[in-house]
Amino acid sequence: LNHFLRSGEEAGNSFPVVVPCCFETLPAFSSYRGEGAFERDFEAEGDISLVFKGVSHTGRIYVDDKYIGEHYNAYTPFSFVINNLDAGKHHLKVVADNRFSEKSALHVPNDYMTYGGINRGVVLEFLPEAYITRLHAVPELTEKGWNLSIDIDVVGKPSSVYNLSTELCDIVNANERVIIGENGSTLVHFNLNAENVEEWSPENPKLYPIKAVLKDDMGNAVRMTHYPNDELFLDLCDEEGVLVWEENHARGLSEEQMRNPNFEPQEEKVTEEMVDYHINHPCILFWGILNECASDSEYGKSCYAAQYAILRKMDKSRPVSSASCKFFTDICLDLPDIVSYNLYPEWYVQDKTAKEWVEENYNWVQEKTKGAGKPFLITEIGAGAIYGYRSQTHDNWTEEYQAEVLDHQLNAVFSTEGISGVFIWQYCDVRISREWFNIRPRTMNNKGIVDEYRRRKLAYDVVKKIYRSYGNYFE
Amino acid sequence: LNHFLRSGEEAGNSFPVVVPCCFETLPAFSSYRGEGAFERDFEAEGDISLVFKGVSHTGRIYVDDKYIGEHYNAYTPFSFVINNLDAGKHHLKVVADNRFSEKSALHVPNDYMTYGGINRGVVLEFLPEAYITRLHAVPELTEKGWNLSIDIDVVGKPSSVYNLSTELCDIVNANERVIIGENGSTLVHFNLNAENVEEWSPENPKLYPIKAVLKDDMGNAVRMTHYPNDELFLDLCDEEGVLVWEENHARGLSEEQMRNPNFEPQEEKVTEEMVDYHINHPCILFWGILNECASDSEYGKSCYAAQYAILRKMDKSRPVSSASCKFFTDICLDLPDIVSYNLYPEWYVQDKTAKEWVEENYNWVQEKTKGAGKPFLITEIGAGAIYGYRSQTHDNWTEEYQAEVLDHQLNAVFSTEGISGVFIWQYCDVRISREWFNIRPRTMNNKGIVDEYRRRKLAYDVVKKIYRSYGNYFE
Amino acid sequence: LNHFLRSGEEAGNSFPVVVPCCFETLPAFSSYRGEGAFERDFEAEGDISLVFKGVSHTGRIYVDDKYIGEHYNAYTPFSFVINNLDAGKHHLKVVADNRFSEKSALHVPNDYMTYGGINRGVVLEFLPEAYITRLHAVPELTEKGWNLSIDIDVVGKPSSVYNLSTELCDIVNANERVIIGENGSTLVHFNLNAENVEEWSPENPKLYPIKAVLKDDMGNAVRMTHYPNDELFLDLCDEEGVLVWEENHARGLSEEQMRNPNFEPQEEKVTEEMVDYHINHPCILFWGILNECASDSEYGKSCYAAQYAILRKMDKSRPVSSASCKFFTDICLDLPDIVSYNLYPEWYVQDKTAKEWVEENYNWVQEKTKGAGKPFLITEIGAGAIYGYRSQTHDNWTEEYQAEVLDHQLNAVFSTEGISGVFIWQYCDVRISREWFNIRPRTMNNKGIVDEYRRRKLAYDVVKKIYRSYGNYFE
Amino acid sequence: LNHFLRSGEEAGNSFPVVVPCCFETLPAFSSYRGEGAFERDFEAEGDISLVFKGVSHTGRIYVDDKYIGEHYNAYTPFSFVINNLDAGKHHLKVVADNRFSEKSALHVPNDYMTYGGINRGVVLEFLPEAYITRLHAVPELTEKGWNLSIDIDVVGKPSSVYNLSTELCDIVNANERVIIGENGSTLVHFNLNAENVEEWSPENPKLYPIKAVLKDDMGNAVRMTHYPNDELFLDLCDEEGVLVWEENHARGLSEEQMRNPNFEPQEEKVTEEMVDYHINHPCILFWGILNECASDSEYGKSCYAAQYAILRKMDKSRPVSSASCKFFTDICLDLPDIVSYNLYPEWYVQDKTAKEWVEENYNWVQEKTKGAGKPFLITEIGAGAIYGYRSQTHDNWTEEYQAEVLDHQLNAVFSTEGISGVFIWQYCDVRISREWFNIRPRTMNNKGIVDEYRRRKLAYDVVKKIYRSYGNYFE
Repeated sequence: LNHFLRSGEEAGNSFPVVVPCCFETLPAFSSYRGEGAFERDFEAEGDISLVFKGVSHTGRIYVDDKYIGEHYNAYTPFSFVINNLDAGKHHLKVVADNRFSEKSALHVPNDYMTYGGINRGVVLEFLPEAYITRLHAVPELTEKGWNLSIDIDVVGKPSSVYNLSTELCDIVNANERVIIGENGSTLVHFNLNAENVEEWSPENPKLYPIKAVLKDDMGNAVRMTHYPNDELFLDLCDEEGVLVWEENHARGLSEEQMRNPNFEPQEEKVTEEMVDYHINHPCILFWGILNECASDSEYGKSCYAAQYAILRKMDKSRPVSSASCKFFTDICLDLPDIVSYNLYPEWYVQDKTAKEWVEENYNWVQEKTKGAGKPFLITEIGAGAIYGYRSQTHDNWTEEYQAEVLDHQLNAVFSTEGISGVFIWQYCDVRISREWFNIRPRTMNNKGIVDEYRRRKLAYDVVKKIYRSYGNYFE
Repeated sequence: LNHFLRSGEEAGNSFPVVVPCCFETLPAFSSYRGEGAFERDFEAEGDISLVFKGVSHTGRIYVDDKYIGEHYNAYTPFSFVINNLDAGKHHLKVVADNRFSEKSALHVPNDYMTYGGINRGVVLEFLPEAYITRLHAVPELTEKGWNLSIDIDVVGKPSSVYNLSTELCDIVNANERVIIGENGSTLVHFNLNAENVEEWSPENPKLYPIKAVLKDDMGNAVRMTHYPNDELFLDLCDEEGVLVWEENHARGLSEEQMRNPNFEPQEEKVTEEMVDYHINHPCILFWGILNECASDSEYGKSCYAAQYAILRKMDKSRPVSSASCKFFTDICLDLPDIVSYNLYPEWYVQDKTAKEWVEENYNWVQEKTKGAGKPFLITEIGAGAIYGYRSQTHDNWTEEYQAEVLDHQLNAVFSTEGISGVFIWQYCDVRISREWFNIRPRTMNNKGIVDEYRRRKLAYDVVKKIYRSYGNYFE
Repeated sequence: LNHFLRSGEEAGNSFPVVVPCCFETLPAFSSYRGEGAFERDFEAEGDISLVFKGVSHTGRIYVDDKYIGEHYNAYTPFSFVINNLDAGKHHLKVVADNRFSEKSALHVPNDYMTYGGINRGVVLEFLPEAYITRLHAVPELTEKGWNLSIDIDVVGKPSSVYNLSTELCDIVNANERVIIGENGSTLVHFNLNAENVEEWSPENPKLYPIKAVLKDDMGNAVRMTHYPNDELFLDLCDEEGVLVWEENHARGLSEEQMRNPNFEPQEEKVTEEMVDYHINHPCILFWGILNECASDSEYGKSCYAAQYAILRKMDKSRPVSSASCKFFTDICLDLPDIVSYNLYPEWYVQDKTAKEWVEENYNWVQEKTKGAGKPFLITEIGAGAIYGYRSQTHDNWTEEYQAEVLDHQLNAVFSTEGISGVFIWQYCDVRISREWFNIRPRTMNNKGIVDEYRRRKLAYDVVKKIYRSYGNYFE
Repeated sequence: LNHFLRSGEEAGNSFPVVVPCCFETLPAFSSYRGEGAFERDFEAEGDISLVFKGVSHTGRIYVDDKYIGEHYNAYTPFSFVINNLDAGKHHLKVVADNRFSEKSALHVPNDYMTYGGINRGVVLEFLPEAYITRLHAVPELTEKGWNLSIDIDVVGKPSSVYNLSTELCDIVNANERVIIGENGSTLVHFNLNAENVEEWSPENPKLYPIKAVLKDDMGNAVRMTHYPNDELFLDLCDEEGVLVWEENHARGLSEEQMRNPNFEPQEEKVTEEMVDYHINHPCILFWGILNECASDSEYGKSCYAAQYAILRKMDKSRPVSSASCKFFTDICLDLPDIVSYNLYPEWYVQDKTAKEWVEENYNWVQEKTKGAGKPFLITEIGAGAIYGYRSQTHDNWTEEYQAEVLDHQLNAVFSTEGISGVFIWQYCDVRISREWFNIRPRTMNNKGIVDEYRRRKLAYDVVKKIYRSYGNYFE
């Protein structure tokens, strides 16, 4: 569905949205009260039913620009049947309206928010010649046990005859002969006696499905933390077109830790499992290994080489890289396809400006190493801030300082020709190992531009403004 | 799965959980580092595969108390095949361990949290005689367009013969004759040439499913705000055994608002739609109408009577009620099956203690009205607090004062014989209509015992302690 | 002392300060590390001593541009004697330096802040021919009670003779003949036996002064809340040149409240006491009465008239006014010397823009009332916000919304010709009567542009920017 | 003044207070509305005037238990003359009342708080035979420059005669012959013409004092951070009976830092200056040196020895010590008079419980060192928390965890026989050097039990409860 809003500063603009969608979830409309139109194309042929679980608070429905009908009240479902559609593409428009006026007796200014838009799901049903529109099953306890009093509405061609088969789980079933009435519908009523069922109760919420036969039927790049991702995440990235840097499991291991006899076998297994299970995800753009490990030592280099070899053997289709923090001492830059650096100028390193750090690091790679000429990525930049801690001191951990540092860092990267891309570390604040509390306020990594509750820090708008200036920004 | 944890204060206690589940999501284990066992029964027969998408960070698997195998690393999947199970119930135990030690070279104290437990999904596959264990499809751009290099592993009885049918969407397909090798498996390799496919890109994340043929599963009451619920919510309550008070759409309408000519037809339609769509949900215990409307006027009473009649006509199986705030002036108490009051002593009314208010109100109903002898519910109690605002003044809106008021209110209700139940208003802070900002800090209703981010206010533990003292408490 | 800072963006700028003063208390220098010079003129003649209780962390002292000496360490006092100054004006410069380097062994980056500047008091002593520079009194418990071992250093002309009289309270005293030594000083040692003294202890911290004879020695307007001010506050405004609107005690009294038989006598007494005690404070620019009371009723008007008469009788030198919230219904505008309105457009009144409200109100006064042509003040504008509550909704009570409203309101006032001035309501959040909690989040009035802890809300910088654009802004 | 409050839970309890004092500043009365009596003795003889700058909102005055009079309104001053007091001790009682009722027409529930008590200063004036009660000076601009119209009320014995000398700075003066009237008072009116005065204005707030001749006239221990204190702080401790550990300037210097050639001379000078300037403050109980420096090295030991020698030479009356963090490796424990350790079990050291750490450390000193048998102090314990950061994880930096750790630490200390005392580190959060940001959230030391705004963390009440259980607690 595309979302088109009628009035205000954003009049005439259209935003891509996923339904359900309230106006207020779009940043530019967080307090909007007015009309908005949701539009999309769909493929259909013949008879369909459009079921709206909730449109707030008045919805007017159009198909192929023809008015179908309307409904008042956000919190009850409604549906329309549209007959005889030609095969092919059709157009649905839902105009939602959340304004208060005399016309609305129930939705009035209130102690809960009346959001606008399509606030619950929408279902498109392809209708056969005859179909069920309602099934009510009311239980009554009788001497013979529980009895279900069942009402079923069937719609179809007048005088046509069907067999209606109804099952309560695999316990009881009923077969009814149905003749459609002159008005195109029939109410079928009958009872099902279910002696051996258990009662639903809070302690034992036993549910019995009832089945009565008839049926039917919606980017950019991200770097994740230092281990293989959940396949659910990768599935979403596949669908949404988000590029992913995926890497094996390691962060900041020293040479000593890499010499742990378990290190090499454990890491190789993880690497193999990662590629084995995730190779089919198109969203994965690179394979990464050994984030910020000992790439400044000969022993370390042997590990990097061994793991790159595994990746290249298992998947010839993707480039490989590794995020380094060994600034001017990295000896592994001949190995990867892409040179990647994690830089935190003006945060961890304060002796130079962000611009100076980025340029010196880039130039050193080009002039002194075998990484020269390879694609060059900044795989981490950022700074910490505690949400809500603001101070005119602009000290470290204030929201003000984080915003300043990100401004300097991003402008440094974008003004250095030769750098192919940058990842901000990180989207949101995350919990960390307790052993690290000493250097991590709140036992959290606070480098998020939003906090763990997705509240926006001051840096959020700085990042947004810079990205927008480079086009293609999408919130 | 049941969750059993090994050490610490909670040793020997077992908690019901839903997988995926990390130890840390259980309040008593929010910082636990150790072992924990997840256990459940499952029904199966013959050959199965248990696929674990992630166990953190070491998992040991037992079926029917027999050790099956183990896996290290939280972030990669693994699976075990178990053959020849007898038909019937079996027992799965997963012992997860998130401790750091020399044995763990990758999971070390780190700048992200190593949660313990089953951190991603678990799948039980029923295996036929032969089945596919792996499908890798690597795209390569050739002169003839895109080519898919496909590897498929097939497992089965040595020397048996199968037909393997592989489709890329409805574009191309391949049929391969497969003979299982002596070791019980075979690698099938072939190419699929797909000329007319579109490339996946962030701008156009086109996905093509590949199919290669082979396939396979908590209690108390809640009162919601003043309109019919989303069916997804009701489905969850059905499954979890949570009782629901559902009501039509109205809150605090004055007699003047009820005389709006749209009121009666709009309200009747909502009521009919609500019952029509939701009658089959066993979790709905009562139908409610007209929260805090003009039940102290004759005109109001005629509306109450008309709407109760609709409910009783459409559903004879459920009691009906209405939450009143007309304290000693309500004239409608002869109409409902249950008497329901919303009371905020020590918050909106400060002239009496909570105990005095609750008793006077209850006694007045028994002595002066036709509501005497009917079940009596407190359908709202509570007080407001702004998360994080603490002060030794114990002024209104401090967390301290909310905690005190809820303590007084709950104890007043529980010590008044004759009251059948109570609903706290409310679980979490929610956004409200801007027109109400003047009496609602933050343009929110702040009566939640947790805020909009689910952060617990001081009142949370007070409520927990009181409910626990009455048994059956479950977090 | 004037404060001149050497480096950075503010190089060359000078700021008026009050000593003690650390660099970091100036907004532009909140994290400054470097040198800064404090300068002022002083009147003196002859010999003086300049005593510095603390300069952080290195101080270089200059008198009349001549280098006098320097001292390292922020936390100990030091002094210099300067002899033979000509009568008249002299110039003192203190260059403070808080930089870390090898030269500083004690002040190093640390777990407490090394602030820069004059961090404790400065004393100018006028020296007579001879004077005491040190007095140490060490108590010892002897058999005869407490004995004080006293050391006194006396400085003077070699060979001159003095009598030194030392008293411990009025208990004991000593007289010593003192001859100044060849080097210009003498150490006098003696004992004082004090039998009947009480020991200092935490429970009874009894102190005995010792006396040894020898000696010496920041504008615009503010409107306060609705009652007479503390004289300490008025004294400060006298000294700093801040204009004050002072008013009698009343806020928002209805006609009914004004008919309380105690009202008129109590209010008259307050008015008389206010003028009687405060008439001599030059900072008071206007007398005000009856903020937001019933100036739209005939009874109310009679009270306004009576109270204006008292003011005019007691003080003929100052204009009188009253802040009204009776927009288009005020009938008292013929009475005051100045027309004053409290306006909250876009906060309490949301049907018009701030610009529309201000203009309509101003025009109505000119066209329809006897207030036409009188000076016209906006005596309150503003909006509420809860510090730390930020949200992209820009709902009421967010810091964002307050900032927007103040921007609109101030620009509306400043762009309306004919309005003589405006007071923002209010500087900081303040506690309110509990009875008002229902419309006051946190039982506070939250309209401050800083909160009760002086933390700046987003509106602070908006106000600052607008005021600066009109010149004369001073932080 | 002693403060006695009449009603509620604290009825009958008396609290020592310093005037001005509102009820609400006492923790137990932070929302009190009622009466309260302030009482104290004073010395006087003859005629006196008691001037109250503000009592809120009704004050009744008693001297020697005799009712003197009363006054309504918090914000205006009033006074009473009492004649013929016998020489010696007298008793003053002020009953303040901040209740709302019909009697109070001005003080009503309001948008600012009506605090109760003595809200502004109180003055006791000793009256001579005749005295001035009022001086009003109203400036008028005349053709001859500024003219002051002066009214002075003089009170005295009927018919007695005085000379009244009035000076405006040293510019003009007037002498008036005054004859006291029959009613015991006279109004003297005259003009002072001051041609050459400058006008008061915000830019030039020039003030001219007017003088008309006539006159008169109201525990425990703390360890401060690592440098000599401001004498103002020491003065207050002298007066309030608070014991102080004062030390020279050093914190955590390594052996390398101690070898800086500037170290020894700079430190010696600081030590000498500290003792020289502060020796007379009785509140100083110990002298301390070199907090947490290299007391585990021979070079370090030589520095400790040298500095102890300076202290002992300059002041023989006080014991010396040094706070060590060198746990089981300190080699300097033979040097001080008192053994002092800074311990942070369960915070910086997590391998043992607080109880175990405290006991092991104490026992090691007794068994293995020459510190055996010396008084033993814990000079720092504590843990960090960020105000407002609460989480059921009880992770480090949560308020919950800090409260738990302090509970364990304090109980460990108090249950270890042989430990003479303990200092909690620290009272409030403080700003730190930016270079330390990496291990200090917010660039602050967050170990305060209140934050920088004095908001109480959860630990506050834990500490209070434990200290109260040991008696002598005073808030």
